[in-house]
Amino acid sequence: MSPNLCLLTVVPTPVRRRCALHYILLHLLGYKLSMDDLKSFRQVDSLTPGHPESSHTDGIEVTTGPLGQGISNAVGLAAAQAHMAATFNKEGFDLITNHTYAFLGDGCLQEGVASETCSLAGHLQLGNLIALYDDNHITIDGETDVSFTEDVVKRFEAYGWHVQVVKDGDNNLESIYNAIVEAQKVKDKPSLIKVHTTIGFGSAKQGTESVHGSPLKADDIVNIKKKFGFDPEQKFHVPDEVYATYNAIGVRGAEAEAKWDALLAQYAQKHPEEHKELTRRIRGDLPEGWEKKLPVYKPGEKNAASRKYSEIVLQAISAGIPELVGGSADLTGSNLTRVKEAVDFQPPSTKLGSYAGRYFRYGVREHGMGAIMNGLSAYGGIIPFGGTFLNFVSYAAGAVRLSALSQHHVLWVATHDSIGLGEDGPTHQPIETAIHLRAIPNLHFWRPADGNETSAAYLFALQAKGTPSVLSLSRQTLPNLENSTIEHAVKGGYVLHDVEGENLNIVSTGSEVQIAVAAAELLAKEGVKTRVISLPCWEVFDAQPKEYQLQVFRSGAPYLSLEAYTTVGWQKYSHEQYGLAAWGASGPYDKVYEKFGITGPNIAAVGKKVAEFYQKRGGEVISPILHAI
Amino acid sequence: MSPNLCLLTVVPTPVRRRCALHYILLHLLGYKLSMDDLKSFRQVDSLTPGHPESSHTDGIEVTTGPLGQGISNAVGLAAAQAHMAATFNKEGFDLITNHTYAFLGDGCLQEGVASETCSLAGHLQLGNLIALYDDNHITIDGETDVSFTEDVVKRFEAYGWHVQVVKDGDNNLESIYNAIVEAQKVKDKPSLIKVHTTIGFGSAKQGTESVHGSPLKADDIVNIKKKFGFDPEQKFHVPDEVYATYNAIGVRGAEAEAKWDALLAQYAQKHPEEHKELTRRIRGDLPEGWEKKLPVYKPGEKNAASRKYSEIVLQAISAGIPELVGGSADLTGSNLTRVKEAVDFQPPSTKLGSYAGRYFRYGVREHGMGAIMNGLSAYGGIIPFGGTFLNFVSYAAGAVRLSALSQHHVLWVATHDSIGLGEDGPTHQPIETAIHLRAIPNLHFWRPADGNETSAAYLFALQAKGTPSVLSLSRQTLPNLENSTIEHAVKGGYVLHDVEGENLNIVSTGSEVQIAVAAAELLAKEGVKTRVISLPCWEVFDAQPKEYQLQVFRSGAPYLSLEAYTTVGWQKYSHEQYGLAAWGASGPYDKVYEKFGITGPNIAAVGKKVAEFYQKRGGEVISPILHAI
Ligand SMILES: [Ca+2]
Ligand SMILES: [Ca+2]
Repeated sequence: MSPNLCLLTVVPTPVRRRCALHYILLHLLGYKLSMDDLKSFRQVDSLTPGHPESSHTDGIEVTTGPLGQGISNAVGLAAAQAHMAATFNKEGFDLITNHTYAFLGDGCLQEGVASETCSLAGHLQLGNLIALYDDNHITIDGETDVSFTEDVVKRFEAYGWHVQVVKDGDNNLESIYNAIVEAQKVKDKPSLIKVHTTIGFGSAKQGTESVHGSPLKADDIVNIKKKFGFDPEQKFHVPDEVYATYNAIGVRGAEAEAKWDALLAQYAQKHPEEHKELTRRIRGDLPEGWEKKLPVYKPGEKNAASRKYSEIVLQAISAGIPELVGGSADLTGSNLTRVKEAVDFQPPSTKLGSYAGRYFRYGVREHGMGAIMNGLSAYGGIIPFGGTFLNFVSYAAGAVRLSALSQHHVLWVATHDSIGLGEDGPTHQPIETAIHLRAIPNLHFWRPADGNETSAAYLFALQAKGTPSVLSLSRQTLPNLENSTIEHAVKGGYVLHDVEGENLNIVSTGSEVQIAVAAAELLAKEGVKTRVISLPCWEVFDAQPKEYQLQVFRSGAPYLSLEAYTTVGWQKYSHEQYGLAAWGASGPYDKVYEKFGITGPNIAAVGKKVAEFYQKRGGEVISPILHAI
Repeated sequence: MSPNLCLLTVVPTPVRRRCALHYILLHLLGYKLSMDDLKSFRQVDSLTPGHPESSHTDGIEVTTGPLGQGISNAVGLAAAQAHMAATFNKEGFDLITNHTYAFLGDGCLQEGVASETCSLAGHLQLGNLIALYDDNHITIDGETDVSFTEDVVKRFEAYGWHVQVVKDGDNNLESIYNAIVEAQKVKDKPSLIKVHTTIGFGSAKQGTESVHGSPLKADDIVNIKKKFGFDPEQKFHVPDEVYATYNAIGVRGAEAEAKWDALLAQYAQKHPEEHKELTRRIRGDLPEGWEKKLPVYKPGEKNAASRKYSEIVLQAISAGIPELVGGSADLTGSNLTRVKEAVDFQPPSTKLGSYAGRYFRYGVREHGMGAIMNGLSAYGGIIPFGGTFLNFVSYAAGAVRLSALSQHHVLWVATHDSIGLGEDGPTHQPIETAIHLRAIPNLHFWRPADGNETSAAYLFALQAKGTPSVLSLSRQTLPNLENSTIEHAVKGGYVLHDVEGENLNIVSTGSEVQIAVAAAELLAKEGVKTRVISLPCWEVFDAQPKEYQLQVFRSGAPYLSLEAYTTVGWQKYSHEQYGLAAWGASGPYDKVYEKFGITGPNIAAVGKKVAEFYQKRGGEVISPILHAI
């Protein structure tokens, strides 16, 4: 059973000293972190890296590090708790009741992503979220006076939070305890407890920024140890009574867990269906046979935009995968992310939905959405997806890379994915976004060409436990292509249109594949035999057996890539590249494609030039993916 | 003379209807925007794209579009006004006095970047900034009730803003006027005027989200025109009295400009030096001979981290380039961005600096810093630079791409640029960042290998009017290399170590170039003759004459790329790639490099394998940059 569901959730903030504290607490509480692990703090291959990583160290629930992510993950964890509680708790079975605790500093509060998520947390009335704000008045640059003089208490009240202030966090530990107890009583608001502290308390340097990054001096450490009653000669030493105290907490935790396990066993008796469902979801297993509902298309049938194909998938599978919890950053009608029967995830008092609702209204908060989805995923039992325009996934880059690093199973439904969005123009047309996302390790960037490829993208993305995916989807209509199948597309790349003795290969993705096919037809008439390769997901294709990869990218004729983005990166799969040299343009999408020469006739002309160049050059044209290393 | 300096600055927000309104106002006020331009709204190659672009349309001062950027640019414009006023105004010469006006909606306020910049604007007491918040209670997803229920008035008061509420913005235009007059009187706080309005006022659909994106129906338009006293039959028609009214405003503006020009002429008499300096800065010309101060190094001399070389450059040139206005997102001591004699840009009442100060304390607000720098640049007379870790430039991706699209002359001092940052670990170590930034059109990503290359990066970046640059700098020490010179490096790429009859070429950047050199030395001992190419800036290298490019990347032997990032993208310049397959690791930097095999001996072993593979394959090895198209 995931401890996330039964124990307190603690989200650390990134600052080094909190991170060390976190590791020490995990050690004292009996997590798999030895004294030797603590000694190798910030060393290569240790369990105690410079910033905690959830997939790496026992007891680390989310990867924080970059500022603002921790508190935002906490909002996601608290939302997940509210959702799972509303879905699975029954009379007499308060199974899912945990609080989420987050520790944050001034830096966290300055980051925009924290503003986004804390505003939403207030709206969502996440009563089980308790954030302790360590107000030590110091950041790396010195006094917060130099840049951060806002009234944090008032700001959080404006967000709809319950706010308390603890005046002497250095000495009056009881007042911190009491504030937490008060916060626990507030059920309809998240709580912020602002605790005035002195950075480096006890040190000769207390209250200055020099304590932030630099280690204390040896004599200062001796003094601090004496001051707090420790033996100054001993290092990495935990007095027995400390171990005993923490051990007692561990015992209490084990008792709580045993009690919870017993409750779950009773739940299994009384509510066998719900129990089965809950445990399945926590294991992260998808319901059996869900994939049979995926739409399948025949060539030319029911042509639609790939954002529409995506909507059809969601409509088909949502009922069967209750852990699919979606939303949009205020672009629901454009992203087509809300299925007909959806109920909004909302506090019941708003009368706009319920916590059992599976549709999140994220507001215009892309970065916040990304960080909240990471929290939802970390909690367990939920597979979150979120919609926005592909271009605005960039706003969330900080959270997206952490999804990948932390192995969160998160989906982005990224519509309006190229110059094909048309009139909104260059400010909204991604150029660099695809290669940016392709370059993030453990992130799958899918750009399906039609209906079957869209179904394939969902099939793969939903099965890819531990890997986030971005689905790049068109605004404009795309035909269902000859030879595109789910089985082909889940390989990440395949030969869509094959010929023998080819003079040219065109490799393409998404909305440009149909243009490659049109070009190939025109070229055939001119005697230039052209294969077309569809490559909806580079990362997945790269994981295929080398033999298969070399069947697709066989040697013999040059490869020309075609994509309505920058050509940067396409050299990996091609000898020649066609794409956008700079920014897009505002206009009806077909006119914009024409302006940039991404049409069947022009690509045929370019392809002919490429084929002739390599014929003239002579020698074997070797596959672009054949390498020495 | 830049009108930015003498007229009111108006920053539009991105929503379509405001954008149309903006274009219409520009037309009525006599900017270069004809009725035909208005008719081709959102058409290819028109002057009226779907979202306004500053480099594209007369009278557009910043490129907004993506939500949150407009108000954040406005903060930058207002800060620029405060700085230029403090620098150039003299007794009797209130030359620089403009207000900055911004219009924003609910969406803008939800974006984190707006929270960051509005918090800072409050801290900075930017009294000449006036923001009108169009509170129409509607976003694309419907009522703001679904996701945005915070108390905006209270939040902005918490930021230290002066806030007013206009209750009937639909009918009581006088109350809006009066609120603006009140706001103008407040000199020590930015002002927010919350104006309650009805979206689509006058339409049958008024007050609903359907007015947001969809056009009104024909009969509805007829009714609205009648309601407001226009001829319902006429389209794209401006009654003469409307032209006359706006023409009078244009005349008033021209009079104000003439008066201002006269004041400037007197200023030239009384303060000739300041006048020369002000006009030079507004033209965007650098002071003559500034580049002579750039540090030059001999091989092996004064080895340092490239962030330190950068500090030495800044220290050397800052006094000579007063328009260089820098800062850091709370990493001053790490980014090394503050020169010794710097004065902070602060409201005088804080006693921490003055508005004439040239060093910005941005706080932990990377995205906000990016958007503010765009505003500073747009104002004229300022070349802003900002420091953070390279990894956190990703937080600011939304603003960075707009720098490039809008041709803002902005510099990012992006330190701690790889796994070389060491202990902070994978959450802070960029992998995908370099290729992301390289893929943004009109953005120069520089990764200098040593002192001379760092000087070259500043030389080029400061001369590249209309192009933003990111300088990717190391935390760890880098030796000054044999054959690295400013003259070589400003070409973006050059042969650092040449041999005849090479068996291998290694192409590298930044901190890995020294490792490539070490590998080449080891390889030479084994009879593998190896050239080393340093490629500090792809974009600049690509702009060199093809002949030069082919001298550097001549055919004959394979090219192996070496960079401590993802290898994605390097296929453009190499046949084989060495880099990071996934995430970095936390540890002392030399141990981390060792873990990933980025050492002289290992790269020599890899290089040998590559050379042998291509020798065995036979045939000519053709330059990776030789193409058909
Ligand atoms: Ca702090
Ligand atoms: Ca609105």
